[in-house]
Amino acid sequence: MRTGVSVEEARAIVLDAVSPLEAERVPAADGLGRVLAEPVVSSRTLPPADCSAMDGYAVRTADLAAAGPDAPVALSVAFEVPAGGHAGRALRPGEAARIFTGAPVPEGADSVVMQEHVEAGEGRARFRAAARRGDHVRPAGEDVRAGDRVLEPGALLGASQLGMLAALGRTQVAVRRRPRVAILSGGDELVEPDEPVDGGRIVSSNSYALAAQCREAGAEPTLLGIARDTAADLERRLRAGLHADVLVSSAGVSVGDHDHVRPVLEKLGCSLLFWGVTMKPGYPLVFGRFAGERGTLVFGLPGNPVSAMVTFELFVRPVLRKLAGFAALSRPTVAATLVERLTKAAGRTHFVRVTLARSGDTWRAMTTGNQSSGVLRSMVLANGLLEFPAEATELAAGAVVRVHVLDPEVFSA
Amino acid sequence: MRTGVSVEEARAIVLDAVSPLEAERVPAADGLGRVLAEPVVSSRTLPPADCSAMDGYAVRTADLAAAGPDAPVALSVAFEVPAGGHAGRALRPGEAARIFTGAPVPEGADSVVMQEHVEAGEGRARFRAAARRGDHVRPAGEDVRAGDRVLEPGALLGASQLGMLAALGRTQVAVRRRPRVAILSGGDELVEPDEPVDGGRIVSSNSYALAAQCREAGAEPTLLGIARDTAADLERRLRAGLHADVLVSSAGVSVGDHDHVRPVLEKLGCSLLFWGVTMKPGYPLVFGRFAGERGTLVFGLPGNPVSAMVTFELFVRPVLRKLAGFAALSRPTVAATLVERLTKAAGRTHFVRVTLARSGDTWRAMTTGNQSSGVLRSMVLANGLLEFPAEATELAAGAVVRVHVLDPEVFSA
Repeated sequence: MRTGVSVEEARAIVLDAVSPLEAERVPAADGLGRVLAEPVVSSRTLPPADCSAMDGYAVRTADLAAAGPDAPVALSVAFEVPAGGHAGRALRPGEAARIFTGAPVPEGADSVVMQEHVEAGEGRARFRAAARRGDHVRPAGEDVRAGDRVLEPGALLGASQLGMLAALGRTQVAVRRRPRVAILSGGDELVEPDEPVDGGRIVSSNSYALAAQCREAGAEPTLLGIARDTAADLERRLRAGLHADVLVSSAGVSVGDHDHVRPVLEKLGCSLLFWGVTMKPGYPLVFGRFAGERGTLVFGLPGNPVSAMVTFELFVRPVLRKLAGFAALSRPTVAATLVERLTKAAGRTHFVRVTLARSGDTWRAMTTGNQSSGVLRSMVLANGLLEFPAEATELAAGAVVRVHVLDPEVFSA
Repeated sequence: MRTGVSVEEARAIVLDAVSPLEAERVPAADGLGRVLAEPVVSSRTLPPADCSAMDGYAVRTADLAAAGPDAPVALSVAFEVPAGGHAGRALRPGEAARIFTGAPVPEGADSVVMQEHVEAGEGRARFRAAARRGDHVRPAGEDVRAGDRVLEPGALLGASQLGMLAALGRTQVAVRRRPRVAILSGGDELVEPDEPVDGGRIVSSNSYALAAQCREAGAEPTLLGIARDTAADLERRLRAGLHADVLVSSAGVSVGDHDHVRPVLEKLGCSLLFWGVTMKPGYPLVFGRFAGERGTLVFGLPGNPVSAMVTFELFVRPVLRKLAGFAALSRPTVAATLVERLTKAAGRTHFVRVTLARSGDTWRAMTTGNQSSGVLRSMVLANGLLEFPAEATELAAGAVVRVHVLDPEVFSA
């Protein structure tokens, strides 16, 4: 097992350990946000026939060749083609057909004139302009032809893709399965949110933040509860998490006497790939993998609330996105101007909680206060994580820095 | 009723018609993505007492004043304070206490020394450096003090906010209710996705695209099915949608003989506020409102798939976001360089389907092909809508244009 790996090394190791999950079929109506796992080839032509793009009159352009503002041409309105209907017969010379948006253009007609430009009455329609072939006619197959490959594997299913699937009559679709994540907290001091906190106990709030981070990443979290600081309880709960694709525990991974996680993981057959990432917050991160072709991945996150959330962002989230089939694995980053001076020792990459503010096309970043890894409040106030490179010791006020965007709403503000 | 309003006028009219919905209480665990409707004031202090930030030894700094690399000071390890435990008594001069991360620092101690820097054995601990007051001690209330206002109304509940609510023992939270949207399609040519399309019928795909757009906007869609082209069927189905906050119909709002929507809406007591927006696609948009303090809003969208989606994006989505309590109502926009020349007639704002590609901090926009409002495929390929201003007639290749971002994934790519 490697120790003290860099952020970049750790990211490469965790991403190298996974490939996208298998496909599953879901109702297309439940497909929003899922990643397509098959090509979608149309068995239909859309529109199925040449059809009218307007409410108006289908005509033969030859009949209107001589029409002009002072030389109206009158045609007899021979029949009507409603939307969803069919012309019973072809249009003959000297005839027009009343037609509605989406209705098939009758045989013989080659243009549609908008009704606003027609004087209609008593079975006849008068036209004061020539028509061009194809005007206001949507040709068959303008949108899709039978046999067209309209969606590719890897496509993210959004509203237009789901509209297209519906149009093609596809009520089910193969998508990548969502990763299942089992979340464990550990520590004798922890209680659930609805339990009393007398005697200095605190809530296992990490589990709830991590579950939300899983959902944001497109994964399905389950909570394994709170393991007490005994190897036996920890082992029992970790075993319960082995059904998951990814097991995330927080706390219990540093070097203290009460840290049972590492030995218990090894006893259960987990190979640890690294311990410790040269970053702050979040150094004591463990990553491992159970044996087998699709062995559960294990992230032992630090116990401090901010350390747990930041290491999740940087390492667990990209893994979940890769499992779920997404092309883009990381949060967006922006280049922002730092409004204050920051210093640190060389050796670890710092991820500094900041507020991003946009003015026009430029971004400003300011820290959200106390950066202690136990201070969740400065995470609550943050919408970005500033990356302060490992070997740098100072970022001057006015420096342009790289910020990982935690809250996509910032782009809309 | 006004006709032919500009995009800006239409947007002002629709947003002026709504204010955020009332609050409802939900389990905090279901709060992800919701907008807070109350301030959250802490009844707890976190951490509840001065506690250790490390596994190590709690000491009195005065005892170690003389310690140095060659002058170790030995203290007796008098007791242990586990995480979640309590010191039974105060630390006396000459004593150290074994302590674990998160455990309360015993009375008398004023510093914690990391165990890595301590030589421990046989009931004694040796220190080779002085300690500073407060080292590795997290003071009580470092994160939150009882009485602190930690979240403000209007906050979007993300992972860190939900972690904070859990830490405060808040298992329920007041959030803005999600808007309910009833979606209706209309047209004799339409069938559901699982029905046969013989005879030139097509699927009412708009309903499925619009339902997904509702979900993306944080609303709850229900489908009212397909109204046939009779006033009676339309009236029956529209009535069923009046329980919703917003009723969205597609098709049936132009000027054809088969357009029953407007008269039926007026018969049901809906005041129409405008008909027609000077844009393309999407001119024939109707907006109205039923009587009463919280009358259902009605959007009659055009029937073409792209017109329906684009008018939803521009007018329905901001309304749903405002109802749900969001601060930012619109999609993000970016300034992009257009890679091709575009022309149009003056008079209407065009929304052109484009693909955005990012290189570094610059964006390029290129059109996705056939811009007919019936061609859903060029919407499927688009991740942005280029706004081609109403009075402009040309955008040169290389021009910097404003693009509304439809797919936030583009920021991560």
